[in-house]
Amino acid sequence: MASTAAAGIELLKLGKADETGLPLGDLPGLVPYTGMTFGGWDLYAEDLLAAAKHHKVLDRDQIDDAEEALAKIKPWPAMGDASFCSGVDGEHRHGDLSHREKIDCLIEDLVRFREESGGSAVLINLASVERTPDRQNPIYHIKEAFEAALDASDPEISPAMLYAYAAIKCGVPYGNFTPSFSGDVPALIAMAEEAGVPLAGKDGKTGQTFMKTVLAPAFRDRALRIDGWYSTNILGNRDGEALNEPNSLASKIETKGDVLNSIVGYDVGSHLVQINYYKPRGDEKEAWDNIDVSGFLGRPMQIKLNFLCRDSVLAAPLVIEIARCLDLAKRRGEGGILEPLGVFFKAPMTQPGQTVQHAFPEQQAALQTWLAGETMQQSYDAARAAAE
Amino acid sequence: MASTAAAGIELLKLGKADETGLPLGDLPGLVPYTGMTFGGWDLYAEDLLAAAKHHKVLDRDQIDDAEEALAKIKPWPAMGDASFCSGVDGEHRHGDLSHREKIDCLIEDLVRFREESGGSAVLINLASVERTPDRQNPIYHIKEAFEAALDASDPEISPAMLYAYAAIKCGVPYGNFTPSFSGDVPALIAMAEEAGVPLAGKDGKTGQTFMKTVLAPAFRDRALRIDGWYSTNILGNRDGEALNEPNSLASKIETKGDVLNSIVGYDVGSHLVQINYYKPRGDEKEAWDNIDVSGFLGRPMQIKLNFLCRDSVLAAPLVIEIARCLDLAKRRGEGGILEPLGVFFKAPMTQPGQTVQHAFPEQQAALQTWLAGETMQQSYDAARAAAE
Amino acid sequence: MASTAAAGIELLKLGKADETGLPLGDLPGLVPYTGMTFGGWDLYAEDLLAAAKHHKVLDRDQIDDAEEALAKIKPWPAMGDASFCSGVDGEHRHGDLSHREKIDCLIEDLVRFREESGGSAVLINLASVERTPDRQNPIYHIKEAFEAALDASDPEISPAMLYAYAAIKCGVPYGNFTPSFSGDVPALIAMAEEAGVPLAGKDGKTGQTFMKTVLAPAFRDRALRIDGWYSTNILGNRDGEALNEPNSLASKIETKGDVLNSIVGYDVGSHLVQINYYKPRGDEKEAWDNIDVSGFLGRPMQIKLNFLCRDSVLAAPLVIEIARCLDLAKRRGEGGILEPLGVFFKAPMTQPGQTVQHAFPEQQAALQTWLAGETMQQSYDAARAAAE
Amino acid sequence: MASTAAAGIELLKLGKADETGLPLGDLPGLVPYTGMTFGGWDLYAEDLLAAAKHHKVLDRDQIDDAEEALAKIKPWPAMGDASFCSGVDGEHRHGDLSHREKIDCLIEDLVRFREESGGSAVLINLASVERTPDRQNPIYHIKEAFEAALDASDPEISPAMLYAYAAIKCGVPYGNFTPSFSGDVPALIAMAEEAGVPLAGKDGKTGQTFMKTVLAPAFRDRALRIDGWYSTNILGNRDGEALNEPNSLASKIETKGDVLNSIVGYDVGSHLVQINYYKPRGDEKEAWDNIDVSGFLGRPMQIKLNFLCRDSVLAAPLVIEIARCLDLAKRRGEGGILEPLGVFFKAPMTQPGQTVQHAFPEQQAALQTWLAGETMQQSYDAARAAAE
Ligand SMILES: NC(=O)c1ccc[n+]([C@@H]2O[C@H](COP(=O)([O-])OP(=O)(O)OC[C@H]3O[C@@H](n4cnc5c(N)ncnc54)[C@H](O)[C@@H]3O)[C@@H](O)[C@H]2O)c1
Ligand SMILES: NC(=O)c1ccc[n+]([C@@H]2O[C@H](COP(=O)([O-])OP(=O)(O)OC[C@H]3O[C@@H](n4cnc5c(N)ncnc54)[C@H](O)[C@@H]3O)[C@@H](O)[C@H]2O)c1
Ligand SMILES: NC(=O)c1ccc[n+]([C@@H]2O[C@H](COP(=O)([O-])OP(=O)(O)OC[C@H]3O[C@@H](n4cnc5c(N)ncnc54)[C@H](O)[C@@H]3O)[C@@H](O)[C@H]2O)c1
Ligand SMILES: NC(=O)c1ccc[n+]([C@@H]2O[C@H](COP(=O)([O-])OP(=O)(O)OC[C@H]3O[C@@H](n4cnc5c(N)ncnc54)[C@H](O)[C@@H]3O)[C@@H](O)[C@H]2O)c1
Ligand code: NA
Ligand code: NA
Repeated sequence: MASTAAAGIELLKLGKADETGLPLGDLPGLVPYTGMTFGGWDLYAEDLLAAAKHHKVLDRDQIDDAEEALAKIKPWPAMGDASFCSGVDGEHRHGDLSHREKIDCLIEDLVRFREESGGSAVLINLASVERTPDRQNPIYHIKEAFEAALDASDPEISPAMLYAYAAIKCGVPYGNFTPSFSGDVPALIAMAEEAGVPLAGKDGKTGQTFMKTVLAPAFRDRALRIDGWYSTNILGNRDGEALNEPNSLASKIETKGDVLNSIVGYDVGSHLVQINYYKPRGDEKEAWDNIDVSGFLGRPMQIKLNFLCRDSVLAAPLVIEIARCLDLAKRRGEGGILEPLGVFFKAPMTQPGQTVQHAFPEQQAALQTWLAGETMQQSYDAARAAAE
Repeated sequence: MASTAAAGIELLKLGKADETGLPLGDLPGLVPYTGMTFGGWDLYAEDLLAAAKHHKVLDRDQIDDAEEALAKIKPWPAMGDASFCSGVDGEHRHGDLSHREKIDCLIEDLVRFREESGGSAVLINLASVERTPDRQNPIYHIKEAFEAALDASDPEISPAMLYAYAAIKCGVPYGNFTPSFSGDVPALIAMAEEAGVPLAGKDGKTGQTFMKTVLAPAFRDRALRIDGWYSTNILGNRDGEALNEPNSLASKIETKGDVLNSIVGYDVGSHLVQINYYKPRGDEKEAWDNIDVSGFLGRPMQIKLNFLCRDSVLAAPLVIEIARCLDLAKRRGEGGILEPLGVFFKAPMTQPGQTVQHAFPEQQAALQTWLAGETMQQSYDAARAAAE
Repeated sequence: MASTAAAGIELLKLGKADETGLPLGDLPGLVPYTGMTFGGWDLYAEDLLAAAKHHKVLDRDQIDDAEEALAKIKPWPAMGDASFCSGVDGEHRHGDLSHREKIDCLIEDLVRFREESGGSAVLINLASVERTPDRQNPIYHIKEAFEAALDASDPEISPAMLYAYAAIKCGVPYGNFTPSFSGDVPALIAMAEEAGVPLAGKDGKTGQTFMKTVLAPAFRDRALRIDGWYSTNILGNRDGEALNEPNSLASKIETKGDVLNSIVGYDVGSHLVQINYYKPRGDEKEAWDNIDVSGFLGRPMQIKLNFLCRDSVLAAPLVIEIARCLDLAKRRGEGGILEPLGVFFKAPMTQPGQTVQHAFPEQQAALQTWLAGETMQQSYDAARAAAE
Repeated sequence: MASTAAAGIELLKLGKADETGLPLGDLPGLVPYTGMTFGGWDLYAEDLLAAAKHHKVLDRDQIDDAEEALAKIKPWPAMGDASFCSGVDGEHRHGDLSHREKIDCLIEDLVRFREESGGSAVLINLASVERTPDRQNPIYHIKEAFEAALDASDPEISPAMLYAYAAIKCGVPYGNFTPSFSGDVPALIAMAEEAGVPLAGKDGKTGQTFMKTVLAPAFRDRALRIDGWYSTNILGNRDGEALNEPNSLASKIETKGDVLNSIVGYDVGSHLVQINYYKPRGDEKEAWDNIDVSGFLGRPMQIKLNFLCRDSVLAAPLVIEIARCLDLAKRRGEGGILEPLGVFFKAPMTQPGQTVQHAFPEQQAALQTWLAGETMQQSYDAARAAAE
């Protein structure tokens, strides 16, 4: 996905791609697409050209066009931890460092990149999904406990949390496109609020969940009762392969979980979600949904949805837009959880105690209001009101 | 559909049905479902019990429960004209009358029914679709010309227009659930405005078009370019059979036509819509849509939607809600085109010169605003603003 | 399924049903449908009328018609064993008996029923699926060891095996419509051969596997290479619920396993089969298959199949035809595994050392040859030859 | 399709493609794939390299590999007639010639090509579909009348018939992959029989009809009654565009027509077939079928089939196999209609008075029997017997 996003921007700069798939276009306030540059860490050292060739998202003509630019983007050595993500175990990493040393490396990379890029930067987590940590652990809840855990190189601090912490510390807005916990723990949220650093997440809303949050509000609005919703996916890319790891799969499915009940306002007893690694598809993905609804007089009806999509093609433009919005928020002086970006996520980060808004139309309206210039709180209130 | 709506309300009164499928529920201001009674005209004399048995929408237990109430509802003799709707040619009609005499009959029926029902009534056109008239004909554009055409029993005045005229004349709000022109001509709109009679139409938005106006805005919001949309339907009820009449089919497809272009804001070259009479399904209907979209970097994706639905089950509750809203508008003193009801129609009636709002989420928001008590003009402005 | 089969035959006798769904019709040699009567064991005492009402396969009119006949069919007390099938634990059973005592009871029931039915009978296993036994256990391989295990009331002898043994012992042909092992163990096969008792099994081929064995041979014949086949099912009946038992699910999926590889003659790496309990459907079932194939020049294509079916409606007529064929075989003097019935089963019983024929067209041709009067061995040779 | 077939064989010669999609492989008796060469006429002068680039069936790597070979294959000037096929009107043709002069040109081309290719050749019609002629016209029925019509340059003799006549005259086996009448008229069949020239046709059976003739026999074999079958296609290639010509569409649909009734043996009242030109797909095609069946006790079920295919990829290998089989027949001394090739065609040519075999499994069995070496008549008898 990272290589697709970078390649797309390079092709845009060369005039070889248009804005199809990029929702926000040239809205005033946002940095132009052609003003963006890419850098990042990876556990494998291959440059973005090699990555793009191997993922087969770009066609041969596009690879030819973007070749030069992509070959120049080489990942920086990363921070990994096999206990959080065993499937991905590259060697492009720093040696045996303490948590604090790792954070120093990350901050160094970030600050250097920000300078090279003209003074502003955004960090988006696009790494492989990590296992779910024990959320009751106090180190995630209290800032001081988190800091102490860092001092002690506590193994329950995941790599994604180190990246998030580094970003917050040097004032770089942080977005989490993965289902990993990273920035989405109370301790880090509190730090971001205090530091005035915008946060957004988590888990990019692309294929089936996107469609689910489009359709479910419409059934709700027509009072068609959802009796069951069976969702299954087949996909064959590296992200899919990671799902053969039961722990990763659990994180992935969890963020899809209560979307439906939350939109319709009752418990849809029979809601099944399956993700299957299925090799023939490569990066292409297919989702199949069967929805059973009851209408007037209890009459049953069925809706079936079949989405032949490409994960990276749907995801990369969202990553780009999240980055542009985080950058805008920073310039506007807004810090902490950036709720109006909820439309981009499967599990939108939300102020504690608030119910999460999953319905796509309401989320989209909230984003537009925010983009139109209102402060976060106003747009948030408007979204809430519309949802009732 | 009429028999389904009436049966549903009777079952609700008996406590044998719940509000599934009825979107508005017990919102303050609206008349309660159990406060509704039904009457109407038909070219065939069979009572609603016979109609319900023959349509097979209700199951045997429901027929048993509603039997007594339905058997009592017998249609009044209707006004038909084979030159406008040749497929339906029942004998339950008044003899050879002039247009003015027909109108007198209709007004007599309406006034009597309104009195029996406690002082308020609403008329909804649920008759078979009529052929499209020559819309350039001045009799449809100028009130005086329309009146003169009535005096002359001009054959270009369709039965549906006579019903609409009668309603306006006696102050009964008028809704048009069919694709026929009826109230949707400038002369009648002007009369309704002057008389302060609420008007709504046209063509109930139930199956495939409903889904289209739910999905297309989401593709728009994600900048997925629609390269083609192929929609086909198979249905086997009397309405489907009427489609074997090329003229009726034309009217029916026309109202589905520019929905898509209007939502996405560009010309989707390849937009095909087909409706096929297919006997095995009876009142059950099936829609299949294939949508080709391009995403980031021009990559093609496909979405396929298969909707196994029941026309009358989706339509009847909308008819009931349109009636309740028209009644509310009348009590609120709002006359003329009731734009906030656009969410219920495939071809929403809109003030001349205004572009039509087809996107379901925006329509739904406009309805909710209106229901929340704002005047029509305010909600209309809000919908417009939201759409931009 | 048992209640559906019995109800269907009763309705045929009454002239209220026709032969739709019954493949063999009035082929010479087979007993006529109206000459069949039903009896059997169940762990629950409810009569077939109660069962039919609760399964909702018949409509209200059909229940009314068959009511009297079905109410008369009351199951005999059964033999169950919670260690083989924990999900189903009815109380309609004989008390604490040894294996030999149980067999005596079963033989008594069978012999009585055969006499009441005019001298001939067939036993078909329609019970809930049992867990897979340890197939290496010698008691299943050597007749003498099996007999000794019976003497010792060995807990590794399952109820289904007791029923099969009882049938063989009293010369009643035995069919196994379930995935349970029952008659499909070498010891019982040898006994049936010696006793000249026809055997058939196992696991009725109804929905998705039926379609798979129809389509795969066609892809093979057109040299379309199958790169992947993803099969998923949703169903909500008691059989589906049993699948929440992991052991039962394993037995069920196992018999679906190598069907595909065996037909196409190579290893289809990506063959996934899923069965999900999904409540909204009741006895109705839905299968969705996605098939990825490569054609000329390696070009990929996709076939998707969506089967909205009813398990019992597809299965009951097969049960009836298996019974008629077993009866014919008995009269023809054919004993042991009746291979030409393979078309009816997901895991056709086949002579040891022979490869199993799964392709539907070849199976159907073998059945027709056999029905046309050839002996089993000839038809078997013809099927083999055709398959090469 | 011609360019795909030629490119495939060239890639096979280069070792850059395998036999996927080619059903007959290296069966003894058939000429090896690598022993084939291509030549032919077209109304447009572009060489096969240009054609292949424009059709986008091959990927860029394959084009690179086959480039040299394809650039060498340049079509010969063709015989066209806008009154038979108005959509295709290229200028690469001989000037104003009489029918007899045209035939001389064609024979000259054929004889020259046969000599260059080592003594044997086969002609397959792969031209755009022609309109249906008036089949009652006696010139098509009596050899002498046909010859006289040629002498008179009768405008009712279509180009496809001229090609077929030329082939028969110089002893070149003739296959018709299109729905056009060409060799499929009694006068030409009689000439082929007398001259001992093998004939095969018509209309290649690739996508939806292939699947229909695979599924319908299975429903028949399970006595599932087909209540309705709705078939629709969307495709965007030149062949699809030609369908915007109502006459060509009629020819195309006609050959699909009675396939179904003929297989199941009763009249499926509701059988609809639609072909739609839908631009976004290019050479890719999509078929969607909905099948309504009734099973035991009249219970309705539905099967939906969605085939995402590539016309040329499915068709080209059949063209290759038809050519190899016609060549084998010629060497075996078999002339006239080659019935065992019926499996390759939507409208298999059949001896007058015989019913046509459409069921795929029976056709496939007949082909295999014939290939195994039996004479045509024996294999024909076997197929008939199997079908009863
Ligand atoms: N593509 C989508 O539609 C989508 C949607 C929602 C969420 N996501 C999430 O986005 C993430 C990326 O998806 P993708 O398709 O690009 O996957 P990918 O497997 O192609 O890329 C993940 C990359 O992260 C690297 N990585 C793993 N651990 C790392 C670490 N600790 N530090 C630095 N790099 C590390 C891997 O080496 C790999 O190159 C996944 O977590 C996925 O679940 C993707
Ligand atoms: N069912 C839906 O989902 C849906 C959706 C949108 C629009 N519609 C429209 O609603 C209308 C009714 O649909 P339906 O399914 O109930 O059809 P229907 O055919 O069951 O009922 C139409 C009734 O109108 C009567 N009729 C015809 N001309 C008349 C006249 N001049 N005066 C009085 N009665 C007359 C007919 O006799 C018939 O009883 C149709 O025009 C249809 O196109 C239906
Ligand atoms: N319906 C199909 O399409 C289909 C296809 C293939 C196989 N099968 C198999 O056929 C069997 C029956 O299916 P069904 O849908 O009728 O299921 P069901 O659950 O409706 O009926 C099974 C019956 O068997 C009884 N039973 C369980 N153990 C018993 C025992 N030891 N002795 C006597 N009775 C016992 C149960 O009480 C129940 O009444 C299952 O094993 C199923 O897997 C069904
Ligand atoms: N592709 C399939 O799956 C399939 C299946 C069945 C039948 N067919 C039939 O096969 C034929 C070819 O299909 P295609 O997809 O290759 O179409 P195409 O349009 O790509 O090619 C047809 C070619 O025939 C040429 N042509 C037209 N009239 C001619 C004439 N009189 N003499 C010589 N050349 C002439 C055209 O110029 C064109 O190059 C069509 O008739 C089609 O209906 C195709
Ligand atoms: Na991905
Ligand atoms: Na079952």
